[in-house]
Amino acid sequence: MTPTLFDIQVAAGRIRPYAHRTPVLTCQSLNERVGAQVFMKCENLQKVGAFKFRGACNAVFALSEAQAARGVATHSSGNHAQALALAARLRGIPAYIVMPSNAPAVKQAAVAGYGGLITLCEPTQAAREAALAQVVAETGAEVVHPYNDVRVIAGQGTVALELLAEAPDLDVVIAPVGGGGLLSGVALAVKALAPRVRVIAGEPAGADDAFRSLAAGQIMPSVAPNTIADGLLTSLGSLTFPIICQHVEQIVTVSEAAIIDAMRFVWERAKLIVEPSGAVPVAVLWEGKIDLRGLRVGVILSGGNVDLTRLPWQT
Amino acid sequence: MTPTLFDIQVAAGRIRPYAHRTPVLTCQSLNERVGAQVFMKCENLQKVGAFKFRGACNAVFALSEAQAARGVATHSSGNHAQALALAARLRGIPAYIVMPSNAPAVKQAAVAGYGGLITLCEPTQAAREAALAQVVAETGAEVVHPYNDVRVIAGQGTVALELLAEAPDLDVVIAPVGGGGLLSGVALAVKALAPRVRVIAGEPAGADDAFRSLAAGQIMPSVAPNTIADGLLTSLGSLTFPIICQHVEQIVTVSEAAIIDAMRFVWERAKLIVEPSGAVPVAVLWEGKIDLRGLRVGVILSGGNVDLTRLPWQT
Repeated sequence: MTPTLFDIQVAAGRIRPYAHRTPVLTCQSLNERVGAQVFMKCENLQKVGAFKFRGACNAVFALSEAQAARGVATHSSGNHAQALALAARLRGIPAYIVMPSNAPAVKQAAVAGYGGLITLCEPTQAAREAALAQVVAETGAEVVHPYNDVRVIAGQGTVALELLAEAPDLDVVIAPVGGGGLLSGVALAVKALAPRVRVIAGEPAGADDAFRSLAAGQIMPSVAPNTIADGLLTSLGSLTFPIICQHVEQIVTVSEAAIIDAMRFVWERAKLIVEPSGAVPVAVLWEGKIDLRGLRVGVILSGGNVDLTRLPWQT
Repeated sequence: MTPTLFDIQVAAGRIRPYAHRTPVLTCQSLNERVGAQVFMKCENLQKVGAFKFRGACNAVFALSEAQAARGVATHSSGNHAQALALAARLRGIPAYIVMPSNAPAVKQAAVAGYGGLITLCEPTQAAREAALAQVVAETGAEVVHPYNDVRVIAGQGTVALELLAEAPDLDVVIAPVGGGGLLSGVALAVKALAPRVRVIAGEPAGADDAFRSLAAGQIMPSVAPNTIADGLLTSLGSLTFPIICQHVEQIVTVSEAAIIDAMRFVWERAKLIVEPSGAVPVAVLWEGKIDLRGLRVGVILSGGNVDLTRLPWQT
């Protein structure tokens, strides 16, 4: 149940009419600070403001007509919920989104704005899963997991196809890791197309379950994660973990201070709005744990969804 | 003394090794709000964070070896000063920048960071001009005016070459207007290449000297301008005014509220950091003074230099 390069290439063709081919940008002051040539793959400029749209879109448009007619479903309070709702709207099918009752009003409004049909539940994992099972029982909708889904992993891997095409001869690609959908898809694509390129992940030190999982050789749960990078709180999945074990050279943990500094640097110097999770790969550049001097480094700015009235450098 | 299309094309070739070819991006929620297809030309992602680098770079690299050896000079406290300093550094020649003594420390530091040689003077127009004349007398440096210079106008016009190439069949192009360097260069290029395309300018109602100049048929000075769009405070120049009269269909004035709303919309939905001046063309889209429904509209996001600790929607 591991996607192949062909699955990722098919996904690229499938989502092409709907997803942005996001730009790959460079920033001289970033290059100078790091002493490397850095290529930013701007998934913060993707639809719904995050790479998540790719996987959701691939999953939705991979469904047969009969499956699609029954709709799709997930439980999520984050970018995946919005991504799935938009993808479903583009195909003209229902998206049933289970959200915890304490999800911020702005996130509920965003999902509803994309036409998602929201079911609120108690804010526990058990309640979320029960509510989702109930929705599926009633509708026959297809569940699309945020990351532990081959269609989603293949969709996220399309990020790497575009990055490698626009920034040839990279030495390293750095992606953030939460559940591992983006990282595993990117690692599969990179290693299939350009096995010489090293794939490295960035993870907040305050949510270092993937780092510990790689060290332990088994999935370690994320327990009480504490980080501003709220897109990276989840544990690895049964599909993403083995791919990451096989293809990812190293997971670099970064401090909260480095994340905030990286985020602010990208805002100030690259003029791009990146969310804390999306700034994690940039934080890797200056944590000094790997020597990148003189290299050509691709970094994936994974998303840009931020509350502009609550910035971490504001008091 | 009006640049030709050929001058602009030569400028494009001249600055190509140094300037970013900035992306042209679209944003579905912007299209839906406006009821048009909007193409954002992202000069906020240009070097030094603004289109100003194009004109400065063209001027610096157009100099003969003998001229260049004596350096370039200007008086400016804004983006032009940084742009000229960087362009000069790239050619390996001195840039003498006269700045008023009350220029923010962060702007002085930015110019110095690009290797600019700063002369501070009293914060009056007379003192600035006297200080610049003194510098030129001592060094023989070539003065590069921020906008009233054919080389600068031709450089700014390269924005339009790229926009028209990437977003074909535009109906309208909207640029902000301050001194008119960007607007006149863009208008020249657009009207030479695609005369059917309408060129419209956006200007803050609180600094509407260009609007009044067009109405009066002569350059009206900017008197006590009051707007958050601090890049658009200057009056038109003797070179830019006639070009604008000939080629610009209309200047649309926009309110401060519309500018701030447009700026926030671009940040939140397009994930791009745009400064107030750069958001003015977006504000034109929803001031409702021109009917853009169903059209293909290019807007030039002219710059992205903002103090991130002082945002207009923060209290």
